[in-house]
Amino acid sequence: MTTRRHLLAGGAAVAGLGVAAGAAVVATTGRDAAPAPVARTDAAPLTTGTATVPFHGPRQAGIAEDPPAHAAFVAFTLPGGTDRRALARMMRLLTDDVARLTQGVPALGDTDATLAVLPARLTVTFGFGPGLYRAAGLAAPIADLPAFRIDRLESRWSGGDLLLQICADDPLTVAHTQRMLIKDTRPFAAVRWVQQGFRRSPGVQAPEHTQRNVLGQLDGTANPRGAEIDPAVWNPDGSSTLVVRRIRAEMETWDILAASDKENAVGRRLESGAPLSGTQERDEPDFARLDDSGLPAMPDFAHVTRARVTDPKLKILRRPYNYDGVPNAAGHPDSGLIFASYQRSITEQYVPIQRRLAEKDLLNEWITPIGSAVFAVPPGCDEGGWVGERVLG
Amino acid sequence: MTTRRHLLAGGAAVAGLGVAAGAAVVATTGRDAAPAPVARTDAAPLTTGTATVPFHGPRQAGIAEDPPAHAAFVAFTLPGGTDRRALARMMRLLTDDVARLTQGVPALGDTDATLAVLPARLTVTFGFGPGLYRAAGLAAPIADLPAFRIDRLESRWSGGDLLLQICADDPLTVAHTQRMLIKDTRPFAAVRWVQQGFRRSPGVQAPEHTQRNVLGQLDGTANPRGAEIDPAVWNPDGSSTLVVRRIRAEMETWDILAASDKENAVGRRLESGAPLSGTQERDEPDFARLDDSGLPAMPDFAHVTRARVTDPKLKILRRPYNYDGVPNAAGHPDSGLIFASYQRSITEQYVPIQRRLAEKDLLNEWITPIGSAVFAVPPGCDEGGWVGERVLG
Repeated sequence: MTTRRHLLAGGAAVAGLGVAAGAAVVATTGRDAAPAPVARTDAAPLTTGTATVPFHGPRQAGIAEDPPAHAAFVAFTLPGGTDRRALARMMRLLTDDVARLTQGVPALGDTDATLAVLPARLTVTFGFGPGLYRAAGLAAPIADLPAFRIDRLESRWSGGDLLLQICADDPLTVAHTQRMLIKDTRPFAAVRWVQQGFRRSPGVQAPEHTQRNVLGQLDGTANPRGAEIDPAVWNPDGSSTLVVRRIRAEMETWDILAASDKENAVGRRLESGAPLSGTQERDEPDFARLDDSGLPAMPDFAHVTRARVTDPKLKILRRPYNYDGVPNAAGHPDSGLIFASYQRSITEQYVPIQRRLAEKDLLNEWITPIGSAVFAVPPGCDEGGWVGERVLG
Repeated sequence: MTTRRHLLAGGAAVAGLGVAAGAAVVATTGRDAAPAPVARTDAAPLTTGTATVPFHGPRQAGIAEDPPAHAAFVAFTLPGGTDRRALARMMRLLTDDVARLTQGVPALGDTDATLAVLPARLTVTFGFGPGLYRAAGLAAPIADLPAFRIDRLESRWSGGDLLLQICADDPLTVAHTQRMLIKDTRPFAAVRWVQQGFRRSPGVQAPEHTQRNVLGQLDGTANPRGAEIDPAVWNPDGSSTLVVRRIRAEMETWDILAASDKENAVGRRLESGAPLSGTQERDEPDFARLDDSGLPAMPDFAHVTRARVTDPKLKILRRPYNYDGVPNAAGHPDSGLIFASYQRSITEQYVPIQRRLAEKDLLNEWITPIGSAVFAVPPGCDEGGWVGERVLG
């Protein structure tokens, strides 16, 4: 805990910079001058930056809420010799940090406190990988996925003993939160991988609008909505599970497809997102309908056909983010999807869908899974408690 | 031009997807179904996505406007044997693409047209490096920067014959524009480097608010404003110049500084951004003022003291973006600033400031320039014209 003590000591000078949740952008200075508020001269209320999502509760935040625009998925590896008591200390510390940061309050050891005051719907969701349970001497409620034949997994994007899913509507808030939480996790674990992604910026599309991925598809139409979410996502104790897959988009070959071929691969129209058997995005696909040439309007091996789940309890809640890395010298992009899905049970809900897709999905030719990780999502906690207390406490 | 022809042919199937500037999110489908507009059920107008910046005019866009939230700086290398006629063809093609994309209209060969309809204040600004003028057999109006002793330049972030500065309030728009323009540049040039950066999301801060960088500092207070911009940035013919520097933030050592030490290094208070001689962000620094202990309130070697320019014509317009890459296993971040400054003359305006900073600037201990590139910014063009026509035509 040397680092922690050091941070707390070093952070004393800025402790006075903390501002209450919902306070304005600029608080009083902690040094030797009078308060110097910066006037807001704009007419419209700028609520995107000050908006908060409650942290405490029986279920973790960052799952059922509309996904904010930016995310960092940060996975850690525990060193050998980590025990349950160390894990409990780590989770107490991280829970305290997150309880503050999500409400726009700097963490106790926050050395860049000025970056903590615009949470922008910040949520941090904790996931426990199989290795964390092993370290704690406990049986894990999740197991690594079976191998799928479409997988081309790279270790640099796979696995992880602890996951932080950091989401906010502002990228600087995500960057600061990532920095702060990695600093406090360092005494306990090493960074394994970080995946940074994005959705549409705030104000670009209404939350109920389905977003597009880098392939230009509306992505998420079949998600459970409203009352459908609870039975699909949450166990009675407030726990859930998370699958994170890095899916590379093969843009070079996708881009030379005709629009109709793209639509056949997906089973939906590019523009409207309507199933090929219908006209509106939310139309239920009609697998009996034939097109003008007497063939099924919904191709048998289209992505939508293969991924189809009718029992609401077996649906998964997809919460994906796009990624766009740096292209190579030839101009080939490094783009794709950070697929993230929440469900009660990975084996009962995610795996059957993924098996069908891996077996036959026209879209497989243009998407390649290159990373994969699974996590148990422990319940949330009340004020004074900490995430994981029922597992590790 | 084989690739171009190919794209134009392949793009025919989606040509019907083009929508007029300012049109709604979803247009009619180009396939075989009736128009399927998606209802907007939100109350507030979502103007962030449909907002446009005019493309045509005597000066290029993307310079004097308030910087949008996201940017990609894309630099290219010309292959040997490139001549003036090839450059003219390239710039005609790219100008046509940008004239469309910035207005929310897909490029002619756009194979992901659904991603082109939310421009979100998209601008694309062209810069010509010294090598482009050499290839064209012309004298360059700019030259590589002198070496500064603080530089630790890496070739992977430095130089470039052609630059595209792509800015928009939405990251998916930036990704699609980057993809489309790289595809159309490929027949002419190879990607040299790409730097992706961010500022606060739309709606988080008012445009007149100075933004913070990853060090937590208010960054850009001394920028020319309003009527000050013209004499600092523009030559009479509508041209300008651009310096792009990648500046790594040494977060590990910065984070253990006391707040007062950070403020002394910069010469401004962290919270308010006020100079240490004043109380408000926009107060002019008072270099004669002494603090309580009889020392100058503005330290001689503070960043603000060294960077100070009083003649408005010698100011530079800073338009920086933060970057935050993936931290290493030890959790050390890869964060910093994509410094971008526009000015009439690099030698008269930028170089003297940078010389003073390189010579003595307390902040140098916590920032390291690792990339550097200079570009001439040709004037804008009228409808039917193309950027660079007065140079290459």
